[in-house]
Amino acid sequence: MAGMELDFVEWLRQRMPKSSQVRIGIGDDAALLTLSRPELVATADLLIDGVHFLTAEHPPEAIGYKALAVNLSDLAAMAAKPAGALVSLALPRDGAGGLTPSELAKRLFDGMLPLAEEFGSPIVGGDTNVHAGPLVVSVTALGEPTGRGVVRRDGARPGDVLLVTGELGGSLAGKHLGFTPRVTEALTLHQTVELQAMMDLSDGLSLDLARLCKASGVGAVVEAAAVPISAAASALAMTTGDLPLKHALSDGEDFELLLSVSPDDADRLLSDTPPGCRLIAIGKVVASEGVTLRQPDGTMEPLLTSGYEHR
Amino acid sequence: MAGMELDFVEWLRQRMPKSSQVRIGIGDDAALLTLSRPELVATADLLIDGVHFLTAEHPPEAIGYKALAVNLSDLAAMAAKPAGALVSLALPRDGAGGLTPSELAKRLFDGMLPLAEEFGSPIVGGDTNVHAGPLVVSVTALGEPTGRGVVRRDGARPGDVLLVTGELGGSLAGKHLGFTPRVTEALTLHQTVELQAMMDLSDGLSLDLARLCKASGVGAVVEAAAVPISAAASALAMTTGDLPLKHALSDGEDFELLLSVSPDDADRLLSDTPPGCRLIAIGKVVASEGVTLRQPDGTMEPLLTSGYEHR
Repeated sequence: MAGMELDFVEWLRQRMPKSSQVRIGIGDDAALLTLSRPELVATADLLIDGVHFLTAEHPPEAIGYKALAVNLSDLAAMAAKPAGALVSLALPRDGAGGLTPSELAKRLFDGMLPLAEEFGSPIVGGDTNVHAGPLVVSVTALGEPTGRGVVRRDGARPGDVLLVTGELGGSLAGKHLGFTPRVTEALTLHQTVELQAMMDLSDGLSLDLARLCKASGVGAVVEAAAVPISAAASALAMTTGDLPLKHALSDGEDFELLLSVSPDDADRLLSDTPPGCRLIAIGKVVASEGVTLRQPDGTMEPLLTSGYEHR
Repeated sequence: MAGMELDFVEWLRQRMPKSSQVRIGIGDDAALLTLSRPELVATADLLIDGVHFLTAEHPPEAIGYKALAVNLSDLAAMAAKPAGALVSLALPRDGAGGLTPSELAKRLFDGMLPLAEEFGSPIVGGDTNVHAGPLVVSVTALGEPTGRGVVRRDGARPGDVLLVTGELGGSLAGKHLGFTPRVTEALTLHQTVELQAMMDLSDGLSLDLARLCKASGVGAVVEAAAVPISAAASALAMTTGDLPLKHALSDGEDFELLLSVSPDDADRLLSDTPPGCRLIAIGKVVASEGVTLRQPDGTMEPLLTSGYEHR
């Protein structure tokens, strides 16, 4: 763990749950992990104060939790099993929220560690530095495919049913900091049926579904009445004047899974949903390109890709 | 590659050399790599404008090169073979050095790509964001052990000879931006002899050797006359008034390898140095704790851990 104060490295090492997969953890030039098979899934997300969280408002534990959770959500989107994570920090020289840089770092890790333990993703390395800018939390999550391989986003086929794992919209009211990454759900569903395509919803259903369709060379029809709208989206709509549905389609940071399965598999999943999973059918995959929203009265309109994209 | 503009992802994807190890690269929720065996080496380093480089002075290509090279140096320190890297960027909203954020990102990658190709470390994922702070480049490098396993820093034994792979000191005059990570040397040496312990010199010989000794539960005696002093350290000494040796011992960012081998292996390496490697013996490992510097007249003094540590 380069650049880190020794006492901090020791503090972190002592808090890391023992893992039989971690042959060398924090403290050497690099970590050494044992995997179940010679295949690795890897993903990285970098979160910045003022963009993805606010140190002035959010407890550091929640920020640390989110930074790891968004990465675990990407592993879930591939139906991969978490194996470890590397965490690099740029800490503001003057600290934040009345905390010194070192206190801030410890509380960020305090937020990550329960999640790391719950999902079997020990922190095996990283780097910590102090600088003149805002807090930056950069996480790389490592995972492994199960024996059934990974699920890509390019396998959706016309006729498939589109499902989501939970309600959408209004995440910035709180869920974006405390959501449960759908790792367990993804692995369970992957064992149960043939997942044709899957991704996690980070930028809003309308934008993310357009991406899945583009990658798969297909289109989709979403049933407006079927989109599950969160209570937070409904509450938000009262202040913005937008429809709750619009929030559900485009707010982003839902971190639910979007999956595409055959009609038979959809029937099976919806009539006998695996324990611990929620599934809501929202529409169908079609051969013609473009994503369309069908209103209850049958009118069709193009679903604009108005999702929130971090810049 | 979350959060990245689509045209940028496409730009980067087209530039990435084809690799048979990369089953899924940039563009899905996560990357999928095939490894030679079910073992993974992983390391992360985060570099920040004003701390590790200066956008006002250094070309973005050199900054990108350095960000990947320091990570490959950590893989080399484990005698691991590079397999891929993830690169996350926090780009200053107003750009830097007259470049827009997007131009800056492209030129950072322009500096990384030749190095990625040379060492077989394709960029398989990452994240790019724009923010109100300075440029932050966060890299995670992935590698694999050879059949001989990795080399840790905790295996040095009393009687071992300490070797370094090149001259030390004065790196900030230029070498820190353009050094060659000692990946090939590490793999060659690991094939040739039994490497007892190894690390890369990032914070200065005096501090890094103290770390290697502490991890191994040993001490060391360094011969002052044997430490290879770079021309840059000698030049720097003329302006600072410090001894060139002091610069060689404590400037940091040398990114040479420090290795500990048996006397027999040291003889073998020094009399018949493998092609492409340079090796200089600088001292010996001893049983008693602490690192001592022996002057040519025989006087001994403790080697202070005055290395440069990034904060």
